[in-house]
Amino acid sequence: MAKQEDLFKNVISHAKEYGYIFASSEIYDGLSAVYDYGQNGAELKKNIKEYWWRSMTQLHQNIVGIDAAILMHPTTWKASGHVDAFNDPLIDNKDSKKRYRADVLVEDYAEKLLQKAEKEIEKARKRFDDFDEEMFKNTNPRVQRYLGDRKEILERLARSLTNEDLADVKALIEELEIADPETGSKNWTEVRQFNLMFGTKLGASADSATQLYLRPETAQGIFVNFLNVQKTGRMKIPFGIAQIGKAFRNEIVARQFIFRMREFEQMEMQFFVRPGEELEWYEKWKETRLNWHKSLGLGEENYRFHDHEKLAHYANAAADIEFNFPFGFKELEGIHSRTDFDLKAHEEFSGKKLRFYDPELKENYVPYVIETSIGLDRMFLAVLSSSLKEEDLGDGNTRTVLKLPAVLAPTKAAILPLIKRDGLPELAQQIVDDLKWDFRVQYDEKDAIGRRYRRQDAAGTPLCITVDHESLEDKAVTVRFRDSMEQKRVPISEVKALIAKETDFRTWMEGFEK
Amino acid sequence: MAKQEDLFKNVISHAKEYGYIFASSEIYDGLSAVYDYGQNGAELKKNIKEYWWRSMTQLHQNIVGIDAAILMHPTTWKASGHVDAFNDPLIDNKDSKKRYRADVLVEDYAEKLLQKAEKEIEKARKRFDDFDEEMFKNTNPRVQRYLGDRKEILERLARSLTNEDLADVKALIEELEIADPETGSKNWTEVRQFNLMFGTKLGASADSATQLYLRPETAQGIFVNFLNVQKTGRMKIPFGIAQIGKAFRNEIVARQFIFRMREFEQMEMQFFVRPGEELEWYEKWKETRLNWHKSLGLGEENYRFHDHEKLAHYANAAADIEFNFPFGFKELEGIHSRTDFDLKAHEEFSGKKLRFYDPELKENYVPYVIETSIGLDRMFLAVLSSSLKEEDLGDGNTRTVLKLPAVLAPTKAAILPLIKRDGLPELAQQIVDDLKWDFRVQYDEKDAIGRRYRRQDAAGTPLCITVDHESLEDKAVTVRFRDSMEQKRVPISEVKALIAKETDFRTWMEGFEK
Repeated sequence: MAKQEDLFKNVISHAKEYGYIFASSEIYDGLSAVYDYGQNGAELKKNIKEYWWRSMTQLHQNIVGIDAAILMHPTTWKASGHVDAFNDPLIDNKDSKKRYRADVLVEDYAEKLLQKAEKEIEKARKRFDDFDEEMFKNTNPRVQRYLGDRKEILERLARSLTNEDLADVKALIEELEIADPETGSKNWTEVRQFNLMFGTKLGASADSATQLYLRPETAQGIFVNFLNVQKTGRMKIPFGIAQIGKAFRNEIVARQFIFRMREFEQMEMQFFVRPGEELEWYEKWKETRLNWHKSLGLGEENYRFHDHEKLAHYANAAADIEFNFPFGFKELEGIHSRTDFDLKAHEEFSGKKLRFYDPELKENYVPYVIETSIGLDRMFLAVLSSSLKEEDLGDGNTRTVLKLPAVLAPTKAAILPLIKRDGLPELAQQIVDDLKWDFRVQYDEKDAIGRRYRRQDAAGTPLCITVDHESLEDKAVTVRFRDSMEQKRVPISEVKALIAKETDFRTWMEGFEK
Repeated sequence: MAKQEDLFKNVISHAKEYGYIFASSEIYDGLSAVYDYGQNGAELKKNIKEYWWRSMTQLHQNIVGIDAAILMHPTTWKASGHVDAFNDPLIDNKDSKKRYRADVLVEDYAEKLLQKAEKEIEKARKRFDDFDEEMFKNTNPRVQRYLGDRKEILERLARSLTNEDLADVKALIEELEIADPETGSKNWTEVRQFNLMFGTKLGASADSATQLYLRPETAQGIFVNFLNVQKTGRMKIPFGIAQIGKAFRNEIVARQFIFRMREFEQMEMQFFVRPGEELEWYEKWKETRLNWHKSLGLGEENYRFHDHEKLAHYANAAADIEFNFPFGFKELEGIHSRTDFDLKAHEEFSGKKLRFYDPELKENYVPYVIETSIGLDRMFLAVLSSSLKEEDLGDGNTRTVLKLPAVLAPTKAAILPLIKRDGLPELAQQIVDDLKWDFRVQYDEKDAIGRRYRRQDAAGTPLCITVDHESLEDKAVTVRFRDSMEQKRVPISEVKALIAKETDFRTWMEGFEK
């Protein structure tokens, strides 16, 4: 665990040092849970978007993309349920004036019971040679009590939240004698619901202003445009609408760097299908999305499915693709069978029919929806954290290398004149001037060549192209590969094709199947 | 004028019919001055972004991009002057309860005086064979009065606004007896300043919340990150930071479709230079940016410079690149010499030094800044409106064609089987499956071939690729060019290279120089 925490700290400081992520408005000491993408981060983020967008819209004839606004008509959020039900139950400590999510306080308490039970099991495991974990769990009275209490507490919490019985959540906190984690005080206020949407006012004055919200999810921008896209795009069921865009949530507990931000970006696709065929499509999209992730080569062992036991009110099936982040397996992408909940709600609130006439069935229906929803910033963190390696070079030296998938790397190649004279900079610059039309490349002439290699390793550049004295004669350069550190001599005329091959979209996308 | 209005209406309805622009939340009757980009609009917008981003960052070794958040520390907007001075003077009509921009009411009045003068001149022109307009203007008492009054009114308005003498703006409205344009009432309130920033609250409750703003411009996200980017990117003056992102302004008078929106997107670049060298760079960027626009081939006659006579408090030179929109020449992009105003203000408010150590001059200084700022949505409108043509085909027929620059077109090619049987759809699908890795292409088998050509013309697709019976034999297809309607036979193996050539970034970017 200590090692994982160290790894996470390394990721955060590396992200800053190499221009990937800065705290927002850092000169003003930052804005909590908001981050800016620096010169390398902006490119990596853009490349992730492109990889998703191309694979979703360009490779599928029946999926198109849209770009809906962040500000939407406020009735949208009545229909979606966000105005009434997109809440966190909050509690204040009267002494410390700190505010907490009441459900998180209870869940943390339950988590501790689980840890205690696990400790007992570990102790017993060490004591007995022929240890039967299941047997022990089911018979040891202490473990039984911990696990039983935990189950009871979580069930009561779930019941109270479902019934919106906030008084009982408060009662639970008092019965369990949960204290303010920072001060130990047990002097709590009532539990209150707090809506997570950021509000703003449209219009000039308080009396005539319209209450708007910054969208808390991009999905609704797709649902309200369903009919416009279907009709003007002549789409036939099954078809999908994809979108990448910002969303905002006024999180009370926002933490873990860019994993949970107040301003974040989503890559979502809503796939409209015939009622009754949704679970088949749900399975199909689960598989397709997992394969997409695997194509990046970040390690198949870093992914797992988590099927939801408790379903949201709009869903009849849901699963997460979890990724092995530096702080453990957490949700990276969600695949949800949303039924016809959203379109029906918008029919009801707008009075407009949102139906599809199915020429084969010869009938009108409200389509069912499979959603694939990925947090772009989480995806960024997954790529960055799993690519950062400290490598032992065997000769007593180590190197820091950012093994980003080449298709996503901000800079595809660095062009390095071995020394700063004898016409080498000029030839290197000529190569840059030819390559720059097709790739983001970087010219670097400062410091010894080894140091420049290390710098490009740490920045994640997959290829270094060195121009030496021989290059003036043989019209060839030395290409060094970031991951293997192998070097090979390549004619200048073939460099462009080499970079294209290493960073080719199709090669990467198809790669995982091979 | 009537013709121009018709053209504009055509653009708006074509934009909806072909999936380019929808009103936001249209099923809820829209949200004023906010729009969504549909399946073709999202692609065109994305391609415009890419064309700008590549030409700015990829082609310039000394320009890098960032992606800063919309939410920023609120002190940012104190430092930039937006909290205190980003206002519109508003006036309410007490009877109609309608709200107007007081300065616009006065300007509209002055505009009418100009129209009256022009009418007199036109009348005289028709009356006299040997008409000397200058002479007539300078001697006709009626024209003299109209123009003199207009000048006086505009000068007084400018003076009052500069001195923040809102009472005099009100007095001017009363003296001119300006009435509510909708109801004719002259019963006005006082004139008040109204800040154009959208506000929102960060945090859980009113008492502990922080007042935030949705950024009204992307530029400040660059300035607050100046030092982080300079240091981690090892940038040397002169260098630039580019950014594409959303900004928000609570405009009272928002109109002209996507030309002036409440939520809009900017493509900005701040170029940091040595103090004293800024005007040289300003001229250079004016030229570079105009050439960028011209490269798209929308017609050189559609651009002109407008040098600002009145400069903003932070600028020592400023010009607009104006484009000939359907409603006349209006600002498309601004090039501003912003001096060291912003960085100095952030130094003052943050207490951090924002300086560059110049190794050649051996001195520290706050760099001067040249800004190039383009409204992405305006750029979209410029491209769309100037591309839409109604063409007389000479045979009594006309066609509607959207002559988008091929490098920006949402769909690069449509693959069309001549008929829906005999293996033609299968071969067409094979071609799609090969091309889709590199380009956004569309398969279409519905309706007669002529009708499909027209549909692709109107959607802006530069190439149609028709698979006919012969294709099964000769492994070739008929390629039809959208603009010339010429057709030629091309081997299937050469289609990919043909599309690449027609849509190649470098060819387009360099095109205007040839």
